Amino acid sequence: MNSSFVYHVPTKIYFGENQLANLASELKVYGTRVLITYGGGSIKKIGLYDKVMAALKDQGLTVFEFSGIEPNPRHSTINKAIALCKQESIDVLLAIGGGSTIDATKFIGAGVFHDGDVWDFFIGKAKITKSLPILTILTLAAAGSEMDAGGVVTNLDSDDKLATGHPSLLPKVSFLDPTNTYSVSPYQTACGCADILSHIFEVYFNLEPDLFMLDTVMEGLMRTIIKYGPIAIKDPNNYEARANIMWASSWAINGFIEGGKDQAWSCHPMEHSLSAYYDITHGLGLAILTPRWLQHVLNEKTAPRIKQFGVQVFGLDSTLPSMIASKMAIERLSDFLFEEMKLQSHLEDVGIDETHFDIMAQKACRGRTIHGFQPLKKEDIISIYRRCL
Amino acid sequence: MNSSFVYHVPTKIYFGENQLANLASELKVYGTRVLITYGGGSIKKIGLYDKVMAALKDQGLTVFEFSGIEPNPRHSTINKAIALCKQESIDVLLAIGGGSTIDATKFIGAGVFHDGDVWDFFIGKAKITKSLPILTILTLAAAGSEMDAGGVVTNLDSDDKLATGHPSLLPKVSFLDPTNTYSVSPYQTACGCADILSHIFEVYFNLEPDLFMLDTVMEGLMRTIIKYGPIAIKDPNNYEARANIMWASSWAINGFIEGGKDQAWSCHPMEHSLSAYYDITHGLGLAILTPRWLQHVLNEKTAPRIKQFGVQVFGLDSTLPSMIASKMAIERLSDFLFEEMKLQSHLEDVGIDETHFDIMAQKACRGRTIHGFQPLKKEDIISIYRRCL
Repeated sequence: MNSSFVYHVPTKIYFGENQLANLASELKVYGTRVLITYGGGSIKKIGLYDKVMAALKDQGLTVFEFSGIEPNPRHSTINKAIALCKQESIDVLLAIGGGSTIDATKFIGAGVFHDGDVWDFFIGKAKITKSLPILTILTLAAAGSEMDAGGVVTNLDSDDKLATGHPSLLPKVSFLDPTNTYSVSPYQTACGCADILSHIFEVYFNLEPDLFMLDTVMEGLMRTIIKYGPIAIKDPNNYEARANIMWASSWAINGFIEGGKDQAWSCHPMEHSLSAYYDITHGLGLAILTPRWLQHVLNEKTAPRIKQFGVQVFGLDSTLPSMIASKMAIERLSDFLFEEMKLQSHLEDVGIDETHFDIMAQKACRGRTIHGFQPLKKEDIISIYRRCL
Repeated sequence: MNSSFVYHVPTKIYFGENQLANLASELKVYGTRVLITYGGGSIKKIGLYDKVMAALKDQGLTVFEFSGIEPNPRHSTINKAIALCKQESIDVLLAIGGGSTIDATKFIGAGVFHDGDVWDFFIGKAKITKSLPILTILTLAAAGSEMDAGGVVTNLDSDDKLATGHPSLLPKVSFLDPTNTYSVSPYQTACGCADILSHIFEVYFNLEPDLFMLDTVMEGLMRTIIKYGPIAIKDPNNYEARANIMWASSWAINGFIEGGKDQAWSCHPMEHSLSAYYDITHGLGLAILTPRWLQHVLNEKTAPRIKQFGVQVFGLDSTLPSMIASKMAIERLSDFLFEEMKLQSHLEDVGIDETHFDIMAQKACRGRTIHGFQPLKKEDIISIYRRCL
């Protein structure tokens, strides 16, 4: 067991309803010229935009806005926002939205200190050294961007979707009000839950032993999503379900569960190729890929861990042989994603065929091997894509 | 469900072996005049003192020392250290030890900014407003002081043991090296485990519903202690056991598991009276009290929660009636503490009789009612003490 690590998550979280009274004072710690960033305007529909504006009124703040950040946010959009920040000498950023808006805002913050295209950060042409301070108001439980230091950006010119990060991108303050996710559709809720589960799977499914304590935390977070995902779909205004999903999503990816393990993520890079080429929802791509990835990597070495997942998360009988229990666990996961959460189960259901599998697989492994739960070469990835058709 | 809360734990954790190379640079963030605080010298016996001194050598730091902090640290000792800080214009404090040393160091840090006795903070005569920055090197997994903002101090003049806290007391950086706990005796390891469990019990045993997600975390932390406590006692140099216990102890009391619940701690104030009057080890007092407290408060309202504890932590049959399962859960807890962990089970075993029960109970509830899992008045507390004889 390695378990040497640095844990440092200084983000301050305001959780629950009626916390926006603290927004202006938290912003003013960092300056007075605020840029609010958001996406397509759903924050106006749910009344959140008005609430934020009311909270910022007569507080001595100068508020600018940048809207239109896409799901799977694009580097070209981020470049425009960076120009605005420079022009208006913005002090502090306030991202209102889900992972796409918050991720984009992180690179807006970093890009202000870079003389060039934000894409440079993703292809090794420039390094992130600092960022404008970022605060967030979360409206979608999925990416965990509100409490982590990384993000993902899409370049449609090159069909690339790449991730990077830096400690300076960690939000200073995040507002997590479960009622802000009441209007998230059943479909997007299901995609969010698939994303959260995948963040845990990428750490949990590993042959290096974990701290048992972190296993119990990961298993608890997974049980939380599996318990409350279906409730949130059927009863979107269920506070208990939305609150549990929201807080679990932050802890799935803020670093706590990693405990210093060597790890390489598997499903995320495979999915980034999918959504770079087809602009599908990230969580949907992960849902389709994950059970087929587990089937592909199932062997005598991986079976005990997949069995543990089945026993601890789905309550499978612990006396079952590992291979049988593993297959049952994968079946239970498929049932959860495709029956209970009603997600589409095949790539063909979302209009994806074999056309780009070769280049997508090539990009997913960057022409090398992903050394995750089991090593994945380009041919493995193509094979997993095929299982998903 | 309330679940409105602020979560903010910015302490940076270096976990694992060989992290002291980062010590000098972390101290220098806060200044160059360092006061090292420690207890009776066990840090010299295990070689940690020499390692720290080596890590601080030729780093441009001026290092002072204050040793002799007691288990159940005394306000009079803290006052002496405060005077030294003022005299030597100390910039930053480095506590090396367990909860007693770290707690004392917190109030040394706060006391530097107060013109008077440190005890004033505990009796409402002065308010903590700021503190010297505090770094810690943990040598005992128990109190969780390395990642929380409070502490407990004893006044032997008045036989009082009182707690207080302030955000400024949260350590900036804590070094958690499980090998630094290898030399902790089986008895002190057992007391530490009892303390950790009690921190979780004080939050978990509550009639207000939790976020399910936090229930799973608490149950996982409890399972961790119950799994690894006996291993650490039998095999003190077992890294896996020491690492799990150490990281669990921090998370038992850093605020994460609380999730905004109204709560009043029950066993801790009852125990503080015990150790204020008899100077027994805090964890031992908690171990003796806890099963008797649960027996005292067991009724139709509390039984479902105690049953949940038994089912999730000890694997009891979930189909058992609540009252029966609760009694079995309390029995299992007693077996763990007094058989597996070999702690003394009765107050008479440690030389405590009824002599001071009245005044001790009076002080535990401060003459009022503790509104915890079940309300406890002075008579309840005397009754619980009697069950412990």
